[in-house]
Amino acid sequence: MEFFFKPKGIALIGASSNQYKGGNSILKNLIKGYKGKIYPVNPAYPEIEGLKCYRSVTDVPDPVDLAIVFVPAKLVPGVIRECVQRKIPGVMIESGGFAEAGARGQSIQSELKQICDETGIRLWGPNCMGLVDFISKRVFSFVSPTLWDYEFIKGNVSLIVQSGMLSAGFIIDTMSHGVMGISKVCSIGNKVDVDECELLEYLLEDPETAVVGLYLESFADGRRFLDICRRSRKPIVVLKSGKSAKGAAAAMSHTASLAGNSAVISGALAQAGVVEAVDFKQMLDLCRSLAMYPEIPRQITGGVAILTYSGGAGIVSSDFIDKTTLSLAELSQSTKDALGKIYPEWMPVANPIDLWPAVEKGGSEMAYGEAIKAVCDDPNVDTILLHYYAGGFALNFDISNLIEITKKSNKPMFCWLLGEAEKAKQFQMKTHELGVPVFRELYRSVECMAAVFEREKAEKSKIVNDRAGSAISEKFKAELKGNTGALDEHISKKILSEYLIPVVDEKIADSVEDALNAARSFGFPVVMKGILPGEIHKTESGLVRLGISSEEQIKKIFGELNMKMAGKGKILVQRQLEGGLELIAGMVRDPQFGPCVMLGLGGIFTEILKDTVFAVAPVSHEEALSMIGRLKSQKLLNGFRGYPPVDREIISQILVRLGDLGCGNPKIKEIDVNPLIAGKNSIVAVDASVVLE
Amino acid sequence: MEFFFKPKGIALIGASSNQYKGGNSILKNLIKGYKGKIYPVNPAYPEIEGLKCYRSVTDVPDPVDLAIVFVPAKLVPGVIRECVQRKIPGVMIESGGFAEAGARGQSIQSELKQICDETGIRLWGPNCMGLVDFISKRVFSFVSPTLWDYEFIKGNVSLIVQSGMLSAGFIIDTMSHGVMGISKVCSIGNKVDVDECELLEYLLEDPETAVVGLYLESFADGRRFLDICRRSRKPIVVLKSGKSAKGAAAAMSHTASLAGNSAVISGALAQAGVVEAVDFKQMLDLCRSLAMYPEIPRQITGGVAILTYSGGAGIVSSDFIDKTTLSLAELSQSTKDALGKIYPEWMPVANPIDLWPAVEKGGSEMAYGEAIKAVCDDPNVDTILLHYYAGGFALNFDISNLIEITKKSNKPMFCWLLGEAEKAKQFQMKTHELGVPVFRELYRSVECMAAVFEREKAEKSKIVNDRAGSAISEKFKAELKGNTGALDEHISKKILSEYLIPVVDEKIADSVEDALNAARSFGFPVVMKGILPGEIHKTESGLVRLGISSEEQIKKIFGELNMKMAGKGKILVQRQLEGGLELIAGMVRDPQFGPCVMLGLGGIFTEILKDTVFAVAPVSHEEALSMIGRLKSQKLLNGFRGYPPVDREIISQILVRLGDLGCGNPKIKEIDVNPLIAGKNSIVAVDASVVLE
Repeated sequence: MEFFFKPKGIALIGASSNQYKGGNSILKNLIKGYKGKIYPVNPAYPEIEGLKCYRSVTDVPDPVDLAIVFVPAKLVPGVIRECVQRKIPGVMIESGGFAEAGARGQSIQSELKQICDETGIRLWGPNCMGLVDFISKRVFSFVSPTLWDYEFIKGNVSLIVQSGMLSAGFIIDTMSHGVMGISKVCSIGNKVDVDECELLEYLLEDPETAVVGLYLESFADGRRFLDICRRSRKPIVVLKSGKSAKGAAAAMSHTASLAGNSAVISGALAQAGVVEAVDFKQMLDLCRSLAMYPEIPRQITGGVAILTYSGGAGIVSSDFIDKTTLSLAELSQSTKDALGKIYPEWMPVANPIDLWPAVEKGGSEMAYGEAIKAVCDDPNVDTILLHYYAGGFALNFDISNLIEITKKSNKPMFCWLLGEAEKAKQFQMKTHELGVPVFRELYRSVECMAAVFEREKAEKSKIVNDRAGSAISEKFKAELKGNTGALDEHISKKILSEYLIPVVDEKIADSVEDALNAARSFGFPVVMKGILPGEIHKTESGLVRLGISSEEQIKKIFGELNMKMAGKGKILVQRQLEGGLELIAGMVRDPQFGPCVMLGLGGIFTEILKDTVFAVAPVSHEEALSMIGRLKSQKLLNGFRGYPPVDREIISQILVRLGDLGCGNPKIKEIDVNPLIAGKNSIVAVDASVVLE
Repeated sequence: MEFFFKPKGIALIGASSNQYKGGNSILKNLIKGYKGKIYPVNPAYPEIEGLKCYRSVTDVPDPVDLAIVFVPAKLVPGVIRECVQRKIPGVMIESGGFAEAGARGQSIQSELKQICDETGIRLWGPNCMGLVDFISKRVFSFVSPTLWDYEFIKGNVSLIVQSGMLSAGFIIDTMSHGVMGISKVCSIGNKVDVDECELLEYLLEDPETAVVGLYLESFADGRRFLDICRRSRKPIVVLKSGKSAKGAAAAMSHTASLAGNSAVISGALAQAGVVEAVDFKQMLDLCRSLAMYPEIPRQITGGVAILTYSGGAGIVSSDFIDKTTLSLAELSQSTKDALGKIYPEWMPVANPIDLWPAVEKGGSEMAYGEAIKAVCDDPNVDTILLHYYAGGFALNFDISNLIEITKKSNKPMFCWLLGEAEKAKQFQMKTHELGVPVFRELYRSVECMAAVFEREKAEKSKIVNDRAGSAISEKFKAELKGNTGALDEHISKKILSEYLIPVVDEKIADSVEDALNAARSFGFPVVMKGILPGEIHKTESGLVRLGISSEEQIKKIFGELNMKMAGKGKILVQRQLEGGLELIAGMVRDPQFGPCVMLGLGGIFTEILKDTVFAVAPVSHEEALSMIGRLKSQKLLNGFRGYPPVDREIISQILVRLGDLGCGNPKIKEIDVNPLIAGKNSIVAVDASVVLE
């Protein structure tokens, strides 16, 4: 990858002297910042921008290890072959007209892929904006050269983006507003060869990168991506677009229809300790917060102290904190005493700490200074939300002293800023340099604060999981081999049972006498079901009878079900479970992530609440436990209004085994355990369906 | 109120020549903008800032009808009495040290209230920042005179704020960033006399105000406030802080414990057609959107068209739209044809409409121009989300032509803007002047777009409700009079039944024979309950027996329950309902809004999901119906997995009557109907509790 990021010499194929063309912008950007040799290539010109221009890349002298290509798509394969001939190891193709542009472009792109495979040349793009490196000033992109009009704010956040806008206009917006500094932006385009996984691996090793933010429209290889994220100690933030796409309408299992795009992606990212963003600027805000606070080097025990000059902003801040996993710190007595000394006599001490009366009494430097000291010494305080106004009034203290105190105590501080435009921008940039993130929207400051602490928790519980899937036993291999589609309930549960997933007591009754014996052994009431090959809507078809409480009923229903199935089905007698909490669990193959397991709150609420969580299989026991913890209604599992507490260990084991089943048996497409009933003394699969490819 | 907003002459009591004092800032602000007579009052100076200074307000000549007071709290009552003597009708007290500052300040504030009541003088404040009117340049506030360094952007949004920050630093932030224009900001402080209701009434009549935004920490009179909002045609936006406060821990009914602050306030505001904000800048963004689009003067049938220069931003926009009540428009054939003409051949037409390839082909003016024409002609498109980049590249068309087309078609357009800082600011200000709101965060643009359409719907279904409460019949008056606390289940349901709220069949059984007769008439199974005076946890105390299916059981349980209650209670026999959807309904008295009704999803999910909705009583039938529609899980009522559809008309009638009961009987503190079971053929209260003051 080094020849992409630190090339020794660059050939620009498609260089142009027309300032409205990308081939001119790229050249200007190279000239402005790149320190190595630059060789424009274009047979139409003897020289461009004062540099000698070459007829063909094959004529370009040494040193050259990167070609940037900006010529029409149909010419690109020829050009790449010339690069191969010239022994250039890496090419960035920035022109468009490939897979994004219909069938013809798609076929050109396939040709590029083939060249890669055959020759080993590495291709970045096509249809991308290449690389912008603000630290070394390597701008390998047709981003407008007006970029150079703005001071580059150096930062340690790098971006990998599947959108040109994010590496061009968006970055100028960010820089010119003084929002934050950036290290590198990699625009990856159609990813014919180099993809986000390789770039992420490179940036995770890059000493100039502390946090990587990614905007992705697709995953090149979901499982590999997750694996890289799991092993990373650097924070990673992902904004994945296109999440509103609905799950496959034709899904045969409930699990598959619940998966959609969004739930699986969110589950996978959470599992790998990735912070998920939803909007562009919010992604950058999360990145810069995590770059300043990639970890919290102390025991977290307490909450947030809010230091404000506005009572109103203090209250709104606590309303926001209340919506996160953070809480307001209960100030210790010594903090209260310290604040008491700077407050006017009548003023009660509380958190949010409203410093205005103290500012009026003794000036802002004294008030904020004493308050910061107190909360930094307070064992109940883990983090500080400071409100500041830039541009006069009584607030005119130097924040660097305060920052020094917070840094010494290892307590992350976040700053919400209002102010006159120019002064606020200056304050934000200076404060950033000192390592404290500044936000203009109050909610955003709380959101980023919460994200830093959430990530700390996630990081600590992150597991690099090397579990292997296990294949199904010989006994059922034939069953899997010969069939497609949904296996019947009874066989499905036998397979689950083989994997030690507890299932309800049940028996196929070949005769009325069989049914009676089964019922006698289970005890009344029992359930009877008609199992008809290919029938997946038993309830709707009247093939499920609940609450059978006498031998007469059994005889009668045995006849009825047989009649209904016209002798083609089997009759199943089941123990009927009373009460218990209804859950749903399952396994589904996601096109991006492969086998995933699912857990949800069952019954009528599954579809209304959509309270389901996913994780990519194999899942470890610990991962399964934290999956359960991600259910919005997980409190229900603690026992509630007569429901017994649910044993999370057992649920977790079921999820682990569902994952193993998925990993070890490619023939199994989906598994639905619905319902999974958690009763007083047992957790069992009451109905289930194994769906084969 | 005119003397506060348009005074003929102003006495400034506490004027100062010390530039660090508020009394100097107020004077400078008056001099800079106010056109009438200004009379500084301070016995220490002969003149200040070139104006003659008076020893006392009693010496001030005519014309004078407003006094602004900035002297220490303890001097204020004396000063106000002098104002009364001088026959000044209105006083703005901007100094602090009153109720916010402990017991002594509280007693001074009470004295002010008393002077108001005795003399009829009107007091604004104390502890406030008065009024800033950007249109007439009347700045009656100690906001820093640096305010005048920024061009006042005139706007038609007015604010009423219970926070000094919002009328000072926040406004300078807003103006200096070119975010939007403001008409008036009223800082109301401690509201000893003039409160948000009066100011809101004034601003709703003010021709320079199109939208009112309020930041409130408390409601002076919740019911009056709602009444004003209900009758208003101008949009109103409210940010209410302090919503994380928990409901009264000692609440005797479930309804009361669910009320808290937040749910009741949100319900009340929704009922009155008020748009609820959560953050400061978001409040302004909502205000400016509604100021541009206070109503939508055409039939709404379709959805959103997204015009973008970035495929990625288009996808993220649709992800956001998917989370609102809006939807992506299905483009009509003629739009597709029109876009087909400007697109390169290979490009498929879809919404989001990615215009970049068309811009490359024919320039941005042509591409955006043709696209706007097409979507404005498209009957499936109601509103347009336009993405723009200010500051070069290929995007350089004049937006005013586009805006003209959208205005002609009455289709609201919203603009998401990126750009180089200064150019973006200019673009935003210019575009605002043309009546299109511009946003810097993508989500915020979608959020505001959705709010405009949501309000349009709410406005159309808003009802000014003049229902009177009705007192309870003579029959139960004695019951109410003699008691306090929770009435027992049986009497509670008798009262509800009197109000035509359907209750389950039940009978008090004085003897075993009575119990048997009741069971025979209801049919088995039945429920038996022990009714013990003062016992509100029947289930936990073992006094509820379900599923009694034989006469023997009745005999046995009759004895057991009597034994358990030691002969002190009564025994209730009830018809047992099978199946049905469990709801909870109730009435509670809110300290700010008075009697409110509640509806929620019952059973174990009430506490986990907190899916409850509130409205202020009396509620009309239509309001009750829209209340039901606000339940997050309201889809459940449409019939679901074997549950029958619930008759919303009946639920609505129950809510109307609970409201009437609350309004007509002050003695009733709370009512709990829990559960309210909606079965196949009936909706009945199965358990209930009427709690008396």
